[in-house]
Amino acid sequence: MKTNIDSCIKVKRSPQRGIYDFEKITQILDADFHCSVSFIDNDYPVNIPTIYGRKGDRIFIHGSVVSRMIKELEKEINLCLNVTIVDGLVLAKSAYHHSLNYRSVVIFGKATLVGEDEKLEALKCISEHMIPGRWEEVRQPSKKELKVTSVLEIPLNKFSAKVREGNVKEEIEDLELNVWSGIVPLKRKALTPVPDSSNQKSLTNPISIVNFINKHQ
Amino acid sequence: MKTNIDSCIKVKRSPQRGIYDFEKITQILDADFHCSVSFIDNDYPVNIPTIYGRKGDRIFIHGSVVSRMIKELEKEINLCLNVTIVDGLVLAKSAYHHSLNYRSVVIFGKATLVGEDEKLEALKCISEHMIPGRWEEVRQPSKKELKVTSVLEIPLNKFSAKVREGNVKEEIEDLELNVWSGIVPLKRKALTPVPDSSNQKSLTNPISIVNFINKHQ
Repeated sequence: MKTNIDSCIKVKRSPQRGIYDFEKITQILDADFHCSVSFIDNDYPVNIPTIYGRKGDRIFIHGSVVSRMIKELEKEINLCLNVTIVDGLVLAKSAYHHSLNYRSVVIFGKATLVGEDEKLEALKCISEHMIPGRWEEVRQPSKKELKVTSVLEIPLNKFSAKVREGNVKEEIEDLELNVWSGIVPLKRKALTPVPDSSNQKSLTNPISIVNFINKHQ
Repeated sequence: MKTNIDSCIKVKRSPQRGIYDFEKITQILDADFHCSVSFIDNDYPVNIPTIYGRKGDRIFIHGSVVSRMIKELEKEINLCLNVTIVDGLVLAKSAYHHSLNYRSVVIFGKATLVGEDEKLEALKCISEHMIPGRWEEVRQPSKKELKVTSVLEIPLNKFSAKVREGNVKEEIEDLELNVWSGIVPLKRKALTPVPDSSNQKSLTNPISIVNFINKHQ
């Protein structure tokens, strides 16, 4: 079945947008923290959003031990994980050449359960991927909390990315049309944190949150 | 197989977050414009990002007539479409109760090809869903452009949504910990538009872009 997977990985439409370089793939993966995971359940495709972490060539996802996604994926069935970051609207002079600027990674593979000895480290990886520094600021998982949580590992070895960046593309005959064209960049931004009412009044934003907000201004 | 689909639709984990109300589902769908579509190709799950439009109880997606996603889906195979909007980080005093605020819709069904008589209207729907008002400002699709584009329709009748909103949840024994907890809201924002160099100098931002930016401030 290898041929099929290899064929899946190859970007066929707009092949100039295809990226197969590990470093570039990890740059995209590290720029976001939520993905959607597809698998087959009773002949139906299922598509579930979740968060992930990355360490080297391994992707970690987690969930309750009784979640359907976890219970299905731990059977080591085929999955497809997609991360898509929308970077901007591409607004051409023609409807046809409208597009998005985006960075999208697709990973094929099978997940395996992370063992008890590595579970805590894998959970930390997911947490630190989302908001670095937070893990050390908070109460660590109890034995009971670890027991009801499963972590899955997906090898990062069958992947491709598709990226569109840069300017609009136009038909030459459209260039003189009196229509505004260009890019509207989009960015995920963090708004002012809302502290919980249980916080002691003297508590200021911890460094993890300050850094996250600075990165998402 | 209906039982299976119904079973797929039901939110089992955190069932209090499950939403099956058509109006609420459409509110979530109308708050975004990109989704990921899963289908099965040669026994492998495939997960492809794309944009969509909604009109009543119909979802439209489009692509090149030769794209793999379009060619597979037009065979009227099972698909699963997911839209997820991340609204914020939920940062609890314990690692375990960290979460996201999000709105996520999952749609199950089969796509059908939109006929030639309706294709233009369906493409307009996708365009207007992304940036209302833009369609009338730009050069309309030529016959040739329409010919190389397929539009698929997905009925909005098998769906569920899962939403988490509001405050952090804590264990009672964690409430007195000297750890900041709260929400960091996240929002997609539009940055300053970058006009293409081909634009005539007198061109200002058209109303569609002004409105889009105002909505994404």
